Amino acid sequence: MPALPVETRLDIADLYAEYAAALDDGDLEKWPDFFTEECVYQLIPRDNYDRGLPLAVIRCESRAMLRDRVVAVRDTTMYEPRYVRHYITGIRIVEASDDVIRVRANYMVLETLADAHTRILNAGRYLDEVVREDGGLRFREKLCVYDSVLVPNTIVYPI
Amino acid sequence: MPALPVETRLDIADLYAEYAAALDDGDLEKWPDFFTEECVYQLIPRDNYDRGLPLAVIRCESRAMLRDRVVAVRDTTMYEPRYVRHYITGIRIVEASDDVIRVRANYMVLETLADAHTRILNAGRYLDEVVREDGGLRFREKLCVYDSVLVPNTIVYPI
Amino acid sequence: MPALPVETRLDIADLYAEYAAALDDGDLEKWPDFFTEECVYQLIPRDNYDRGLPLAVIRCESRAMLRDRVVAVRDTTMYEPRYVRHYITGIRIVEASDDVIRVRANYMVLETLADAHTRILNAGRYLDEVVREDGGLRFREKLCVYDSVLVPNTIVYPI
Repeated sequence: MPALPVETRLDIADLYAEYAAALDDGDLEKWPDFFTEECVYQLIPRDNYDRGLPLAVIRCESRAMLRDRVVAVRDTTMYEPRYVRHYITGIRIVEASDDVIRVRANYMVLETLADAHTRILNAGRYLDEVVREDGGLRFREKLCVYDSVLVPNTIVYPI
Repeated sequence: MPALPVETRLDIADLYAEYAAALDDGDLEKWPDFFTEECVYQLIPRDNYDRGLPLAVIRCESRAMLRDRVVAVRDTTMYEPRYVRHYITGIRIVEASDDVIRVRANYMVLETLADAHTRILNAGRYLDEVVREDGGLRFREKLCVYDSVLVPNTIVYPI
Repeated sequence: MPALPVETRLDIADLYAEYAAALDDGDLEKWPDFFTEECVYQLIPRDNYDRGLPLAVIRCESRAMLRDRVVAVRDTTMYEPRYVRHYITGIRIVEASDDVIRVRANYMVLETLADAHTRILNAGRYLDEVVREDGGLRFREKLCVYDSVLVPNTIVYPI
């Protein structure tokens, strides 16, 4: 792969930092804006992904569907209030063309319920496609492939 | 925000890496040197911070107070020996002027007691002000806003 | 230390991201290729390391020994299938000459067993020597100094 400009590599790191910050600050309404209008967001267990099974726990195919999802999360009163926090490491560009930058990273999401200790909610890797749009970077595709088949109910929250 | 020089962005990342290394290596005496003489260091629960309540678990307002704190931690024999380890991700510069660089990051501190498994001690975000001084970077303000209201006794250690 | 070129600093970050990805993807056979032919890989408890005791849990002294180790891990059927995931933060270059780049970093390895929640397997710091070889970067030495004396059986897997 031809070496990307240093600025691009740092901009990619910034994209993930801003993505995490929006979710961790509870600014759910900002979440769809990290994606292009036509996009794919999937949360899929690693066992399924590795076997080529298409079954995802969550699959959204446009920014409009992501917006619906935000409303659903906001309206889901059945689950206790909690904080989430994203730790994204090992961000690396595996392919880059004029059209798209393919990025891989490891993520870990912690959650903290009221009166409880912080614990690991979900861990896995991102398999993403990033494009330049309106002078910024957006996800055209984000696959969240997580390691544990045990999924807490609360994983309704964006990963 | 105008783009910062690449070197500055990497220097900021180095600052956090060195901060973590000093604490994780047990070099507590180095900790105050990461701050300016006049400074603010606070450890504050997220619930309080979000509601605008000023109540912090720990608040130091000068490098001298940080030094006192190091002595207090060293002399606190009531708590078992343990190792801590900082994982700082999502470091991003949210504002930069000639005077100050405002930085946000997520942190997770693990602790390991003798004969015990490693566990999560504290997780949250840093809301920091960094200034250039004596050719290096120092914290003029560091707010550690943590997610869990459950605070182990052992959080006397710098976060 | 003279400032290293920005590209070198980012290449070091990429090295760790690729190292983590190879292990986390289960591409164990790629692991020895991250090392030079003559190399040292050690997994050593912090208590021993800090006291200058040479006792390591695992010690390999060449790429050939690393290859043997991969075979051993593959053939060890006594342990349950699991996923591991590496989170490497605070990567910093502490020394650089024409010959070698000395790097420190914090690492955390999570593991996920089938039908279990993700948990912390091992946490500590890397004390590494990186050299340029065949146009890429390789580890001439990697010391994994971990915080907990409690070592799960499953730590046979490369850290």
